[in-house]
Amino acid sequence: MKRRQFLTGVGVAGAAAAASSLPKPAIAQAMPEVQWRCASSFPKSLDTIFGAAEVISKRVAAATDGKFQIRIFAAGEIVPAFSVLDAVKDGTVQMAHTAPYYFVGKDPTFAFDCAVPFGLNARMQNAWMYTGGGLELMREFYKGYNTIQFVAGNTGAQMGGWFRKEIKTVEDLKGLKFRIGGFAGQVLTKLGVVPQQIPGGDIYPSLEKGTIDAAEWVGPYDDEKLGFFKVAKFYHYPGWWEGGPQLSAYVNIAEWEKLPKSYQAIYEAACAEANGYMLAKYDSANPAALKRLVGQGVQLKPFPNAVMEACMKAAFELYDETAAKNENFKKVYTAWKAYREEAYLWFRVAENRFDNFVFTAGQAKPAAAPKKKS
Amino acid sequence: MKRRQFLTGVGVAGAAAAASSLPKPAIAQAMPEVQWRCASSFPKSLDTIFGAAEVISKRVAAATDGKFQIRIFAAGEIVPAFSVLDAVKDGTVQMAHTAPYYFVGKDPTFAFDCAVPFGLNARMQNAWMYTGGGLELMREFYKGYNTIQFVAGNTGAQMGGWFRKEIKTVEDLKGLKFRIGGFAGQVLTKLGVVPQQIPGGDIYPSLEKGTIDAAEWVGPYDDEKLGFFKVAKFYHYPGWWEGGPQLSAYVNIAEWEKLPKSYQAIYEAACAEANGYMLAKYDSANPAALKRLVGQGVQLKPFPNAVMEACMKAAFELYDETAAKNENFKKVYTAWKAYREEAYLWFRVAENRFDNFVFTAGQAKPAAAPKKKS
Repeated sequence: MKRRQFLTGVGVAGAAAAASSLPKPAIAQAMPEVQWRCASSFPKSLDTIFGAAEVISKRVAAATDGKFQIRIFAAGEIVPAFSVLDAVKDGTVQMAHTAPYYFVGKDPTFAFDCAVPFGLNARMQNAWMYTGGGLELMREFYKGYNTIQFVAGNTGAQMGGWFRKEIKTVEDLKGLKFRIGGFAGQVLTKLGVVPQQIPGGDIYPSLEKGTIDAAEWVGPYDDEKLGFFKVAKFYHYPGWWEGGPQLSAYVNIAEWEKLPKSYQAIYEAACAEANGYMLAKYDSANPAALKRLVGQGVQLKPFPNAVMEACMKAAFELYDETAAKNENFKKVYTAWKAYREEAYLWFRVAENRFDNFVFTAGQAKPAAAPKKKS
Repeated sequence: MKRRQFLTGVGVAGAAAAASSLPKPAIAQAMPEVQWRCASSFPKSLDTIFGAAEVISKRVAAATDGKFQIRIFAAGEIVPAFSVLDAVKDGTVQMAHTAPYYFVGKDPTFAFDCAVPFGLNARMQNAWMYTGGGLELMREFYKGYNTIQFVAGNTGAQMGGWFRKEIKTVEDLKGLKFRIGGFAGQVLTKLGVVPQQIPGGDIYPSLEKGTIDAAEWVGPYDDEKLGFFKVAKFYHYPGWWEGGPQLSAYVNIAEWEKLPKSYQAIYEAACAEANGYMLAKYDSANPAALKRLVGQGVQLKPFPNAVMEACMKAAFELYDETAAKNENFKKVYTAWKAYREEAYLWFRVAENRFDNFVFTAGQAKPAAAPKKKS
C-alpha cells in the first residue's frame, strides 16, 4: 500500500528524476549499509560459543533494519582459529570472536582479557571489565594490535577435564601428557605435566590411543558432544585455570571509527547482551548434560586440595616471573591482583554463604547424585 | 561541508518545494521521534539501581541518534514507588523500572520475576529467564497487567540486614520487629517475626529509637549511605530471601507494539546491557564499602545454620500453601522449582568448588579481616 502511494505520489517521471538527483537526506547518511565479516575461533557445532557471535550479528541487523550486516564465519572457513587476531589487526576481516588467551604466545597479557588461573569467576570478570578498570587497561594494550575489544561471552567455571587415571596427589601430575593450552600449561609444566596442544577434533583419538593421558575442553554440555566419557572415566573439577573465561569481540580500530555513532552504540549493547546470553545458555544446558554423563558411569572427582594448592603456588610464581620481564603484563597484573583480593573479600560474605547454604541444603535430594558418586 | 552541499545542491526553490511534497522516504518512517516517560521505584541517590534505568535511556538514545528518548523519573516524582505497575498498566507512563516483588500483595507470582527466598542466585536467575523458560512464563502472567517485562538489573546476593542484637538461635526471631517486606516477611511471620513496612528514609530513625529491632536494605554500598551502622552493630548475612534479586523494566503492551521493530530490538539489547552493568557496578562498589563498615566496628555475622534451616522449611511450606490456592503461582513455581534443583546440581560442582577454593586460599591475607571479626 505504501509502496503504491509512493509510486503514484511522485506523479511524473521528471519529479522522480529530480528526487534521485537530490542529495540523500541526513537520516539516510546516518544509516549507511555496512557489511562486516566476523572470523570466529570456534566451529558451528559449539552453538554456545559460536552462538554468541550470532547473537551480536542478529541484534545488530534487527536494530538497524538490516543495514548493518555481520556475517559470521566458523574457524577455518576464511581464517584459521588462532589467526583471527592477525586478521583483525591487518584488516583482513572487520571483526573476530575469540578467546583472548589463545594469544598468550604473543603476549601473556592477553590472559587478563579471558582467564588467568586461580583468577576471577564470571561475575568478577564482568565486574572488573565493566566497572573495575579492566576494560580501559586492556583497550590500551590492544591498541598495539590495531584492535578494540568488547566483552562478548563467558562459559562460567569450566571443568578440569577428562583423565584416564584419577589424580590423587601432586606426584600424579609428573609426566602427565595433558591436552591443555596457554598459560595453564605453563603453570602445570612447573609441576611436571607435559602440556599438549591438540586441535579439538583430534583429542578423542589421542585420548583413546593413550597418546595423551588427559584432556580438558569446556564443561558437560560441550564435552559430551565430543564423547570423551567413552575413553576417560575420571572427570575432574574445577578447571581452576578458567574460573570464568571471557570471550571477546575484536574490531579493527579503523573499521570501528568508520561506523556511525549510532551503529557503535548498537554494537556495544549487542556485545553486552551476547555476554550475558552465552553464560545463561551454558548455565541452562550444563545440568542435563552432567546428569547424562553421570548416567554413563562418569566418575566426578574434585581435584584434591593439595593438588590445587601446589598449582596455585606455581601459578603465582609464574605471574611474578612474567611481571618481572614484561611491562604490559606487570601493569595489568598489579591492578588485576588488587581487584581480585577486594572482590574475594566481598564475594565470600553474602554471595558465597548463600550459595554454600542452598547447595548443601539441597543435597538430600536426587539432584545430589553426582556428589554421591564422587 | 555536507550541509553546504545540501543547500547548494538543491539549487532552486521549486526543487525544494517538490522535495517537501514527496512522501517521506521509508527510512525516515522507520525512525520516528518517540518520547517515553519511565517511572522508577527508586530514588536518584541509589546510583546503582536508579542508574540501571539511566543505562537503558542513554543507550536507546545513542542507538537512535536521539530519536527515541526515555526520561527517567525518580520514585514519587510522577508516580509513587509502589504504584509504577498500575501506572504502566493504565498507560499513565510508557514504562517503569522496579523490583517486581513489590507487587506480591497483588499476586505472589510476581516474586519469581525478582527473588524468592532460598531461590536462585544472580547467575541462575539470568539463566532461568533468558534460556530456561522463565521469561516466557512470566510474560504470560504479565499480560494480565497490560505489561511486557524485560530483565533489567540485579543486585547479587544481598546482606541479611542490621540488627541491634545478634541473632544466635531460632528463638531470637520471636517478636523481632524487623523492617522487611513482601514474601520474606510472610516466611518470617511463621517464625514469630513481626515484619514492618517502612519507607527507606524512615528506617534510620526507627532503628535509632528502637521502634524496630532490625532492618534490611541491600548491601554494603547502599546500606552505608543510609548510616545504619551507627545504630545497629550486627550485620547479618546472607539475605537468604534475595540471593539474586532481579529488577525489571515494565512496558505497556500497547506502547510496545507501537514501536518500530528496530526500536524494539534496541530496547531489548539495552535492557540486557543494563542487567549486566548493574550487577557489575554492585560487585565493584561493595568490597570497599564493606571494608569501611568493618573499619567502623560493624560486626559481620553469618546467620546460624539452624536459623537458616528453620527459615527454609517455613519458606517451602509457604510456597506449597500458596500454590494450593493460586493457579498462576502454581504454574510458575512448578517450573521454577525443577529448574532450581537442576541448577544447584551443576553449580555445586565446578563453580562452587572453584569459588570455595580460591576464597579460602585467599583468607590468610589482610582481605580476610571481616571473616576474622565474625
